[in-house]
Amino acid sequence: MHILAFGEVMLRFTVADKMMLEQCDNLHITTVGTGVNLLSSLAHFGYDTSILTVLPDNPIGKKAAADLRKLGICDNKIIYQGKSMGSFFVELGQGARPERVTYQDRLSSSFSQMSVEDYSFEKSLAGVDIVHICGIALSLTKQTRLAALKLAKMAHEMKKIVCFDFNYRMSLNENNTHEAMKARYQEILPYVDTIFGSKRDLTDLLDYQETDEKKLYQQFCQDYQISFFAGSRRTFVDDKKYFEGFLFHHDKIYESSPKELNILDRIGSGDAFASGVITGLLEKWDFVDTLEFAIANSVLAQASMNDSPIFEKQDIFNYLDNKGTNDLIR
Amino acid sequence: MHILAFGEVMLRFTVADKMMLEQCDNLHITTVGTGVNLLSSLAHFGYDTSILTVLPDNPIGKKAAADLRKLGICDNKIIYQGKSMGSFFVELGQGARPERVTYQDRLSSSFSQMSVEDYSFEKSLAGVDIVHICGIALSLTKQTRLAALKLAKMAHEMKKIVCFDFNYRMSLNENNTHEAMKARYQEILPYVDTIFGSKRDLTDLLDYQETDEKKLYQQFCQDYQISFFAGSRRTFVDDKKYFEGFLFHHDKIYESSPKELNILDRIGSGDAFASGVITGLLEKWDFVDTLEFAIANSVLAQASMNDSPIFEKQDIFNYLDNKGTNDLIR
Amino acid sequence: MHILAFGEVMLRFTVADKMMLEQCDNLHITTVGTGVNLLSSLAHFGYDTSILTVLPDNPIGKKAAADLRKLGICDNKIIYQGKSMGSFFVELGQGARPERVTYQDRLSSSFSQMSVEDYSFEKSLAGVDIVHICGIALSLTKQTRLAALKLAKMAHEMKKIVCFDFNYRMSLNENNTHEAMKARYQEILPYVDTIFGSKRDLTDLLDYQETDEKKLYQQFCQDYQISFFAGSRRTFVDDKKYFEGFLFHHDKIYESSPKELNILDRIGSGDAFASGVITGLLEKWDFVDTLEFAIANSVLAQASMNDSPIFEKQDIFNYLDNKGTNDLIR
Amino acid sequence: MHILAFGEVMLRFTVADKMMLEQCDNLHITTVGTGVNLLSSLAHFGYDTSILTVLPDNPIGKKAAADLRKLGICDNKIIYQGKSMGSFFVELGQGARPERVTYQDRLSSSFSQMSVEDYSFEKSLAGVDIVHICGIALSLTKQTRLAALKLAKMAHEMKKIVCFDFNYRMSLNENNTHEAMKARYQEILPYVDTIFGSKRDLTDLLDYQETDEKKLYQQFCQDYQISFFAGSRRTFVDDKKYFEGFLFHHDKIYESSPKELNILDRIGSGDAFASGVITGLLEKWDFVDTLEFAIANSVLAQASMNDSPIFEKQDIFNYLDNKGTNDLIR
Amino acid sequence: MHILAFGEVMLRFTVADKMMLEQCDNLHITTVGTGVNLLSSLAHFGYDTSILTVLPDNPIGKKAAADLRKLGICDNKIIYQGKSMGSFFVELGQGARPERVTYQDRLSSSFSQMSVEDYSFEKSLAGVDIVHICGIALSLTKQTRLAALKLAKMAHEMKKIVCFDFNYRMSLNENNTHEAMKARYQEILPYVDTIFGSKRDLTDLLDYQETDEKKLYQQFCQDYQISFFAGSRRTFVDDKKYFEGFLFHHDKIYESSPKELNILDRIGSGDAFASGVITGLLEKWDFVDTLEFAIANSVLAQASMNDSPIFEKQDIFNYLDNKGTNDLIR
Amino acid sequence: MHILAFGEVMLRFTVADKMMLEQCDNLHITTVGTGVNLLSSLAHFGYDTSILTVLPDNPIGKKAAADLRKLGICDNKIIYQGKSMGSFFVELGQGARPERVTYQDRLSSSFSQMSVEDYSFEKSLAGVDIVHICGIALSLTKQTRLAALKLAKMAHEMKKIVCFDFNYRMSLNENNTHEAMKARYQEILPYVDTIFGSKRDLTDLLDYQETDEKKLYQQFCQDYQISFFAGSRRTFVDDKKYFEGFLFHHDKIYESSPKELNILDRIGSGDAFASGVITGLLEKWDFVDTLEFAIANSVLAQASMNDSPIFEKQDIFNYLDNKGTNDLIR
Repeated sequence: MHILAFGEVMLRFTVADKMMLEQCDNLHITTVGTGVNLLSSLAHFGYDTSILTVLPDNPIGKKAAADLRKLGICDNKIIYQGKSMGSFFVELGQGARPERVTYQDRLSSSFSQMSVEDYSFEKSLAGVDIVHICGIALSLTKQTRLAALKLAKMAHEMKKIVCFDFNYRMSLNENNTHEAMKARYQEILPYVDTIFGSKRDLTDLLDYQETDEKKLYQQFCQDYQISFFAGSRRTFVDDKKYFEGFLFHHDKIYESSPKELNILDRIGSGDAFASGVITGLLEKWDFVDTLEFAIANSVLAQASMNDSPIFEKQDIFNYLDNKGTNDLIR
Repeated sequence: MHILAFGEVMLRFTVADKMMLEQCDNLHITTVGTGVNLLSSLAHFGYDTSILTVLPDNPIGKKAAADLRKLGICDNKIIYQGKSMGSFFVELGQGARPERVTYQDRLSSSFSQMSVEDYSFEKSLAGVDIVHICGIALSLTKQTRLAALKLAKMAHEMKKIVCFDFNYRMSLNENNTHEAMKARYQEILPYVDTIFGSKRDLTDLLDYQETDEKKLYQQFCQDYQISFFAGSRRTFVDDKKYFEGFLFHHDKIYESSPKELNILDRIGSGDAFASGVITGLLEKWDFVDTLEFAIANSVLAQASMNDSPIFEKQDIFNYLDNKGTNDLIR
Repeated sequence: MHILAFGEVMLRFTVADKMMLEQCDNLHITTVGTGVNLLSSLAHFGYDTSILTVLPDNPIGKKAAADLRKLGICDNKIIYQGKSMGSFFVELGQGARPERVTYQDRLSSSFSQMSVEDYSFEKSLAGVDIVHICGIALSLTKQTRLAALKLAKMAHEMKKIVCFDFNYRMSLNENNTHEAMKARYQEILPYVDTIFGSKRDLTDLLDYQETDEKKLYQQFCQDYQISFFAGSRRTFVDDKKYFEGFLFHHDKIYESSPKELNILDRIGSGDAFASGVITGLLEKWDFVDTLEFAIANSVLAQASMNDSPIFEKQDIFNYLDNKGTNDLIR
Repeated sequence: MHILAFGEVMLRFTVADKMMLEQCDNLHITTVGTGVNLLSSLAHFGYDTSILTVLPDNPIGKKAAADLRKLGICDNKIIYQGKSMGSFFVELGQGARPERVTYQDRLSSSFSQMSVEDYSFEKSLAGVDIVHICGIALSLTKQTRLAALKLAKMAHEMKKIVCFDFNYRMSLNENNTHEAMKARYQEILPYVDTIFGSKRDLTDLLDYQETDEKKLYQQFCQDYQISFFAGSRRTFVDDKKYFEGFLFHHDKIYESSPKELNILDRIGSGDAFASGVITGLLEKWDFVDTLEFAIANSVLAQASMNDSPIFEKQDIFNYLDNKGTNDLIR
Repeated sequence: MHILAFGEVMLRFTVADKMMLEQCDNLHITTVGTGVNLLSSLAHFGYDTSILTVLPDNPIGKKAAADLRKLGICDNKIIYQGKSMGSFFVELGQGARPERVTYQDRLSSSFSQMSVEDYSFEKSLAGVDIVHICGIALSLTKQTRLAALKLAKMAHEMKKIVCFDFNYRMSLNENNTHEAMKARYQEILPYVDTIFGSKRDLTDLLDYQETDEKKLYQQFCQDYQISFFAGSRRTFVDDKKYFEGFLFHHDKIYESSPKELNILDRIGSGDAFASGVITGLLEKWDFVDTLEFAIANSVLAQASMNDSPIFEKQDIFNYLDNKGTNDLIR
Repeated sequence: MHILAFGEVMLRFTVADKMMLEQCDNLHITTVGTGVNLLSSLAHFGYDTSILTVLPDNPIGKKAAADLRKLGICDNKIIYQGKSMGSFFVELGQGARPERVTYQDRLSSSFSQMSVEDYSFEKSLAGVDIVHICGIALSLTKQTRLAALKLAKMAHEMKKIVCFDFNYRMSLNENNTHEAMKARYQEILPYVDTIFGSKRDLTDLLDYQETDEKKLYQQFCQDYQISFFAGSRRTFVDDKKYFEGFLFHHDKIYESSPKELNILDRIGSGDAFASGVITGLLEKWDFVDTLEFAIANSVLAQASMNDSPIFEKQDIFNYLDNKGTNDLIR
């Protein structure tokens, strides 16, 4: 089973020692992105993975590719062109002090500037079973938008399973408007089988009016012939934080139990959930088991440094078996 | 609005990685002090600030001045003389293991050894609206005591607002006695407008007998013509730690709600509170809003590394708006 | 009072910054082991300590000896021979993500390969009052097993107090069988006065059938003429973790109150408890006071980095006096 | 004497421990740029300095401003707008392995995107005696080019001394052509008094044909009414590296002696030289003494980490007095 | 062109900051070995590479595999079994203080304990063009020796090019004798095409008596039908260190010019040379050009941290074009 | 053979990564001092050593004692009193940029404030064969001066060998005058057997007029009945630095050959030389061999981090055997 992800790869600069950027000159660099995080987790669950992206043709791009290989992601579909990568700074949080993310420019990156004509999608799709497309491509540049659409369409026609993550960030390009964004999502959705998103994506972005959650998903999945619609959310009860997930399939909503969060580094929680869901679907697990697994993967990922989860299946099962009370493994 | 602080600047050596000093040879050095912490926070709230202190005339003093500038504090009133700075080691705590502070000698520092005659207070006060004096000067040497008194008096006569922080530490000089200390505080208080302290400062240091808190503050503020008396305290309820503040003004006590603490580094919590209160008073905010803001600033500061708060107003408002539940800012 | 410990000394490689091994190339190395941890704590309580072990005759062994001296352990009984030390990697945990320990080979170490004939036990025991033997020697190689037995017997005959820690790890040598392991423990126990272990050690390893805890300890202590049998355990109540200890002596079980855990680094919790118990027994404290002290030492140790506790008695008393609520010591 | 510099401020990411980017995830971040380096050095020589630049209005820009203040540069003329800074990675060299610099995109930065109309040059020039303009502005965007020209012209008309550094980097914008670049330099030069550049700048960029160095400089300085033309160069003799400088003034070339290099971090060597030359001219030192001082400043800077020199005059004099043989200062 | 290397993969612990092990607790871990180093360099020259080795089936082995992937080495022929890896400590040198390497046990590693029957050599050789075998396998255990021999024979029969590195280390197993070692090398040599070694390997290990270097290589290559015999050596002239290489082919010795060394980390110098030679032979370069390239690769590698070279061809050509005088690349 | 050293123990803060203090907040702390450095080296040569000093009775003093034990120095004669230690910052040098040392106050330290009456010198001298006194005690406070004198006298009377290091630093106390300093040295010298110093100590401090070096030493040794007078010096030839030593004994000057320096950290070079000389004298080596050994120890120490040498005899012999050309030890 080979999974290909399409999307932007970014450099993450984490300020050391829980300090704020203004306080500290020591950074830890990692190579991340929605596709990266998802594939890293899937690779550690035992799947073949590769990423379709554009990296700069210089030591920065080479470093990023080396990092991707280290995460278990095959780098042989990567295109080297241009000279920049998007980047962001992370200041870890503590208690009431939130983790803070500050982006540098993403529109001038090698990925954002890559012309859709320069991709060889057919070649990239050879040998691939599942394609994952990150919705951020719809918010960046015209080129990334065209590329995402073309890839989704081609993969759909080649009978690949197409997964799609809403990841709706209108502010990434100041030229984006609600109507334009909505139209782009409407254009890509017919080619998609499995979707990661939230209720708000349907109401705020796609302007659905239905307030009953189940009917809302029903209507949406029918409109675009979507097989699975899944998402995660965080809740707060008595000063404690919890994480939980749902999956809509064939007119039914499945839900995980909420699991307590003890956050070290929150970024990538949705990607960890998505890779867990994809794994459960591929392994044809019970849907609730799938959600339990996916939420557990995300809870562990949020208790770990960096975006990209590297847990193996057994790590997740251990957590589920111990209900999270185990504090030492020998 | 330009705020000048007078007081000792110290070097803080924090042991890395939450280790204890005996375990670890890696230290992180920062430049701190009551005045430094207060001004750092005020500078990040948008005020002009400068510090009046004495630093050694060598690379150590130059490093300290560079650090002060980085915090947003103007260094052009600093006097360079002598060759030492007071210093202390910090071992961060965890759970039931308390944070531990160990001081090195402070009496031989450039600040403690500076003769009162060598200051040019009049020149230092030019352009200044508010003067903050840290009470520790009353506990160090005869020279620091005389300097604090002379500055308070001159500022008062020049119609500057004078803020004063009790910061009572008798043990700093073995020659200090209760009676001598009490007399020094009684001598400086008539020149002061706004005071940071606690009930205990009034009863234990100044020997007030009144047990009703409101009457106590009333009596004290009347005795010395104090406009504002403010302080913070920590409480423990059901194994959880909270932080809260009060402000006495015109016969009335105002109080913040208690806010839960999740401590990364506790030092400087009072200074963060004081800078919040000063800000609220300058901005003429409602007194309870002022206390909420001040306590929030301190809660965030205690959830951050190092003594000197660097939060902007918006960071505090975000915290207050979210009641501390937000764990990611993009 | 001079305490000698016999056992393996290991290198511990801790992955930096709470990362997992696969994520991070920065390690922190420490020199540890049951005997090391115990003696480090006892040395910081004011006792003379020395360790009897075998270290490689190369820069690695010299480094380990330097580390032991730093912990306050006399190194003049150490034998230098061979060229390897056992080692393990530690990935610190967070919340539901457990701390993880991965061992490298321990059977080829200088300690495991040392021939029993090459020890000079009589000389090593000169001036010693108490001998502590770690049961892991019974699980490693034939040579370590014979050495532990010979030392226990000789110490017993020389009227030294012999302490023994079950520390039962059958998996350390694939040739170990339940019956062989049981026989080895049965052979050494008659020479022992004070034992650290758990109910499970008696039932699972020694095949005791008694289910009543008090009767079980009674029977065991009678069978082998054991004066003291002590142990610690962790409990979970309402998502919180607690640590507590017991001591069986003269037909009676004494128990500490449970103390809440806030774990930074869990390893060595049993050794911290054992050194606290030994201290209480040597100081002839009340048994419950002894357990309170021992559990407090372990709770602080688990809130600190590394295996080897370095708290002084006063640190423990401060914790007990404040019920763990103090969060700053100046 | 107040010196204002105009130009781009960048983030520099230095790979730790002399490793290459692909090998190491630990970075050290500093805030740099031609103007920054020059002003840092001049501030440490005792001059008032401020920078005119554009930084992003977010934690990245605030961090950069804090760093500039730390270097001794006044930040009150900085404009906060946009959300990106140019950045580059540095891999330190060793022996035959050269130091390597890799740039990320600079055209999308807050500085490059700032519209010339949004500057208030007149206000920025208030109180300024000398203006330094970095030629890189002529290579970035139309806006940076127009801003540099407008500033040069206005400063010239306001009788400020205008310094200019060729810093010719055509490759920074793919739309740059030789003819366009040449025209831009020809347009700005008439407003300039002191220039830092090389013979090659005159022949390759400005198409001068003269081969005799003295006549070349004569012709150039006459064409544009330049008072001072200075530059540095590196030479290799017997496997050793040397650094030396020249100054052309009033028909005469002055030269420093060559000084041996022992490089730790080469970047910023020209800026260190320029700040030394400016200092000598301001102090009206003998021209050869000025060059000796400037080259010494650069040699020390190249033996130090980071771009921005922080040596005081006395450090340079010590080096010159000892001919670089001193290896310990107490 | 796909190159497979067979051999031990080890963990290298480098003491930080040029300190000695006894002084410092911070280590940097890397995954190394003759095969690793060679393949890392070849992968960066553009070849497909994979390694045949045995890693422990635990987080240590997973970490090592991740590191190998990062270096560009395919990990899909790796066998996971056992639980240990060989390891060594490195203390970097400075001037007259040599770099120091201290090995931990290598005989108990997963690689050393792997039974020859458990390999699937035929499968491992599928798709492979060149096989590189490290001679250290002949010095470790009986199993590693048998595996190396079987692989060499099978590869030879399958018409693969077989490269072999003498890497003669008799001391690795105390049971090794000169005669036994000699016999093992004599047994494997008939299957080998290209050899890396030194004159001393032929005289001291294989007992050749010939003193004329050319005749010696002639005789050796004839005896075993060796196509290429190459090696490197270091020389000292006037307190400077140089590195140079030779290649013997068809009765002729080719030599590189000596290149000056400026060492940061010496380990792996022979592997960097070997990968350069293999590249030149594969590219059918002139033999002297090949040696120049190979020595340059090694000189750069010795000026870099860690064992495994990561230079691209262009980096080597830059060095050769500049004769090592370039000290900055932008 | 047991050697006791008397003198101040200091904290050294080394700025990380060859940066300057103003540039960097990461420090590495070590515990040093003339006595510490000397004993560390002698302990690593196999001698029993202990230090007589005063450390603060707090976590700082405990950390220092732990560090001393790690260096191999017995801590059981240390007195804990007061609360400060002298300290200094070190910025490492590179090429022409000298290493820079900046002291903090030393007169308020526990050692400087210790009253001579509070020492128990007789008890401290029990079991000691050799006493080393650092001359800095004569420059600090009246108490340190009296203590040094009393100890020298008592050791002399008890027939211990007394070594003394001039270490003349008049500037340490502003009350010091040339005449007072001279008188103090004249007072202690009659009790001394072996002296470390320089020609300049005799001419500048003791006002000897003799210009012939041999006659000068002859006169001095005769005046005070000194057995051995030894010293080291650094020379510069052709841009290279060398280190060499001399020993005067019985009317004859012995000299080492000069050895090239490649400095990583220069501090402690004289102490490394002194420990080498003491070793040679104790071992009754040939005087030139002794000097060669002592200079080699110092050359290696200067090529290492930190003040305190930790080389074993074999390390020195390896260096001497290889004439410093060896660059790898396995």
